[in-house]
Amino acid sequence: MTEAIQQLQIRRVGIDTWRENVAYLHRDCPIVRAAGFQALAKVEIHANGQTILAVLNVVDDERIVSACELGVSEDAFARLAVPEGHEARIAHAEPPRSIPALHRKINGERLGREDIAAIIADVAAARYSKIELAAFVVATNQYELDREEVLHLSEAMIAVGRKLDWQHQIGAGLVVDKHCIGGIPGNRTSMLVVPIVAAHGMLCPKTSSRAITSPSGTADTMEMLAEVELPFERMVQIVRDTHACLAWGGTADLSPADDILISVERPLSIDSPGQMVASILSKKIAAGSTHLVLDIPVGPSAKVRSMAEAQRLKKLFEFVANHLRLQLDVVLSDGRQPIGRGIGPVLEARDVMQVLQGDPAAPHDLRQKALRLAGRMIEFDPDVRGGQGYAIARDILESGRALAQMNAIIDAQGRRQEVPAIGALRVEVPAPADGVVVGMDNLRLARIARLAGAPQVSGAGLDLLKKLGDPVRRGETLYRIHAEFEADLRFAGDHADKDCGYQIGSPEQSPREFASGSLFSM
Amino acid sequence: MTEAIQQLQIRRVGIDTWRENVAYLHRDCPIVRAAGFQALAKVEIHANGQTILAVLNVVDDERIVSACELGVSEDAFARLAVPEGHEARIAHAEPPRSIPALHRKINGERLGREDIAAIIADVAAARYSKIELAAFVVATNQYELDREEVLHLSEAMIAVGRKLDWQHQIGAGLVVDKHCIGGIPGNRTSMLVVPIVAAHGMLCPKTSSRAITSPSGTADTMEMLAEVELPFERMVQIVRDTHACLAWGGTADLSPADDILISVERPLSIDSPGQMVASILSKKIAAGSTHLVLDIPVGPSAKVRSMAEAQRLKKLFEFVANHLRLQLDVVLSDGRQPIGRGIGPVLEARDVMQVLQGDPAAPHDLRQKALRLAGRMIEFDPDVRGGQGYAIARDILESGRALAQMNAIIDAQGRRQEVPAIGALRVEVPAPADGVVVGMDNLRLARIARLAGAPQVSGAGLDLLKKLGDPVRRGETLYRIHAEFEADLRFAGDHADKDCGYQIGSPEQSPREFASGSLFSM
Repeated sequence: MTEAIQQLQIRRVGIDTWRENVAYLHRDCPIVRAAGFQALAKVEIHANGQTILAVLNVVDDERIVSACELGVSEDAFARLAVPEGHEARIAHAEPPRSIPALHRKINGERLGREDIAAIIADVAAARYSKIELAAFVVATNQYELDREEVLHLSEAMIAVGRKLDWQHQIGAGLVVDKHCIGGIPGNRTSMLVVPIVAAHGMLCPKTSSRAITSPSGTADTMEMLAEVELPFERMVQIVRDTHACLAWGGTADLSPADDILISVERPLSIDSPGQMVASILSKKIAAGSTHLVLDIPVGPSAKVRSMAEAQRLKKLFEFVANHLRLQLDVVLSDGRQPIGRGIGPVLEARDVMQVLQGDPAAPHDLRQKALRLAGRMIEFDPDVRGGQGYAIARDILESGRALAQMNAIIDAQGRRQEVPAIGALRVEVPAPADGVVVGMDNLRLARIARLAGAPQVSGAGLDLLKKLGDPVRRGETLYRIHAEFEADLRFAGDHADKDCGYQIGSPEQSPREFASGSLFSM
Repeated sequence: MTEAIQQLQIRRVGIDTWRENVAYLHRDCPIVRAAGFQALAKVEIHANGQTILAVLNVVDDERIVSACELGVSEDAFARLAVPEGHEARIAHAEPPRSIPALHRKINGERLGREDIAAIIADVAAARYSKIELAAFVVATNQYELDREEVLHLSEAMIAVGRKLDWQHQIGAGLVVDKHCIGGIPGNRTSMLVVPIVAAHGMLCPKTSSRAITSPSGTADTMEMLAEVELPFERMVQIVRDTHACLAWGGTADLSPADDILISVERPLSIDSPGQMVASILSKKIAAGSTHLVLDIPVGPSAKVRSMAEAQRLKKLFEFVANHLRLQLDVVLSDGRQPIGRGIGPVLEARDVMQVLQGDPAAPHDLRQKALRLAGRMIEFDPDVRGGQGYAIARDILESGRALAQMNAIIDAQGRRQEVPAIGALRVEVPAPADGVVVGMDNLRLARIARLAGAPQVSGAGLDLLKKLGDPVRRGETLYRIHAEFEADLRFAGDHADKDCGYQIGSPEQSPREFASGSLFSM
């Protein structure tokens, strides 16, 4: 803590450290040497009355920072909100206030409401390093959070974010929403459900994510038809005009702590029940939803692999939703194969529009699933009798009112002049033997679609010609891979050659109906 | 995976990312956009037949990297070992081979020998990101590794490092060593034990660490007297000449995986039993030790806080050492207060030399503890009867032979011309009341010493005038803080004002003798 501390000048270092504040100090900076700052040490940066925490990287290159400069990464620069050249002080950081609670969790203790609130407040304020975030995510993995802790986590995430108030904005009482926990390629039911329930007169301002590890998210697919990055005020106007929207949720800042936690959950491929429940329900509450239909697909290559696990997860969702006063209806759905035929932004958009247009070629499973989910949402309407929802949804779809509603939403958001074409390069993946399709691997098919270029390359992906239970002849095409670049096509094709993601068996192995009410059976 | 991948040129980015490979790509780099690389994605860098994994940071500043360059951090540049401007290819990385095993450990499963070997091989090859390292450290925290897993972890750490072979180097059969698990300020017994046992004729090539979170490590304190950064060949010559050395172990590359794990354990303040045992014993085996005396201090502010915990840790050390064929003698010692009077490099070196010189002012506790440990080491000598070690050690010390041996070691390593002075700035910390010292907080005292500047500022630290059981009068000095900079002194003094780390009580609360053989008592 020498006097020289006063002398540093802020320099913006144009490195995107992805939600981690990083400070760059030159190795010859007198402060680094005198105060014994070590690489990866946490430091406090004081500038203009603001204080932020950052992780220290030591620099040996004057072009990045000189000895009297304090370099800050893009995230840190944005948080400090001072111009370059502004004076700053730096000091050894006291650990964030919640670190003792983090250590107790790492050691297997149960945390109370205040502990969790303190952790999430520190996370949201970017006071945790990536290493500390990873420690929290691992320590709260699997069923290591009990249900009260999950509730506290959800409440804490809501508390640090922004909350949309549709009641205040447009006088809405009932705000319905639909969410899927993910993991099933091609599962674009939101783009059908939203126009159907909006046509029924319900308010459904849907915000969706882009693909994180999948070949396309709802926002990516909707973007093939319309703008999805909507400023908040425009979104409100669209919802006022059309009862609905299908927007990207990334700009809304609804759950900043969750966004930060996801930045380490994603590279770790961790998506544990407690974190999933808190993440989804906190975002729904923040988005102003009052009623939610939640889709949990179950299958051997889905996120949830057994009916027992699905029931356990369902009860956890219900417990937390109940305490958050969110009306929740959980649907356990068939997650044994992708939904629809297309996998990838353009291919999925094609499926959705075929269903809306009543095209005879429309994929039956996508249509049926969307009607079933829309029916459950419509039954949130106090004037609809239990069991009537499906028929109402089907009438709305078959009458063309859903298509008209979707067109209104697309026009309101900003219709895309031309839907991008399906990738012109293609390769066909043949059945290795005669038989029946008895198994499909969601993860493998998603990976092949990503290697083909989805979602960055809009027209890339898979077009599935065969689904579970279909008879096939050796050499007959199971699916087509579409791409726009030769290298991508080759890469995806090589992967499909190794394991195409389909299992062909004898007719006796043919999969049975999915029975969500009873035991799960293949 | 577009063709453009071939075009990148390596640029060294002078940022020390502390044992993590980081790749810097410009946001406008065609590869980032076409292949959809995201910040924090893992990428494979191929150059000159080499492949390394790195974490991606996206850059917006041409001064750091331009659109056709592939920036690499210092660690990654060193691993690639190609000149700047060299061509490189980049691709999405497959996850390291051991990631499925990591996930099984995160989910609470027991890992087998091959799983652990695969994880440690990936760690040592820098294929794990900081986030993945943190996940491993948290998932193996506390007693979440069973003893077989700790053994496998130790073996795996040995397997990926270098191993010193004293038998081969200088024909030694018995190589003795002494280690303390740490946490007790001022505990510089190695600098006494090593010359004593070397004077007895035993081979004791001691490598020590620098301070990580403490106010001084043995290497830091020894450096006040002699050079400690010794190239391997010189160390061998010194051991050949003097039977011993007191060198810094950082250059030996004995346990590279452990060094990498420590880089996340340190910022997380995690030091769990399994990791500690594997870390210590793997380094001792790698350093060629055949016999080890291990010091486990026990006390309310020590790393080990109860005798039950100490016994459990002792048995874990014994189990693993036995399978590694390391002769191990565990000593449970009094960890209720710092050892000696000085805390900080120069102050501790003074204590050590006072003991060696037979100075009547020498701290009694440091002398006694060193003699006890040296005695246990001497009893590894087959010609010494059980129980005789202490007396032999005392004779060696009192005869001046230990001092002569230490001087020989100092001269061999390179004597420092002048021992740095004790920090000239000082403040005295007074007793808040009349009474007896009934408690001392190791952590608090270490923190105050560090704030005063130790270990970077050699003469900074604490000089303890009172210890447990000493009667004090209100206002009488408990300890002096020494510093070289005003700001440091003020900072440390302010901290001592808030809580000086001493507990003053009534004579009845006076601490009892430490009874290591029986139940631990205050």
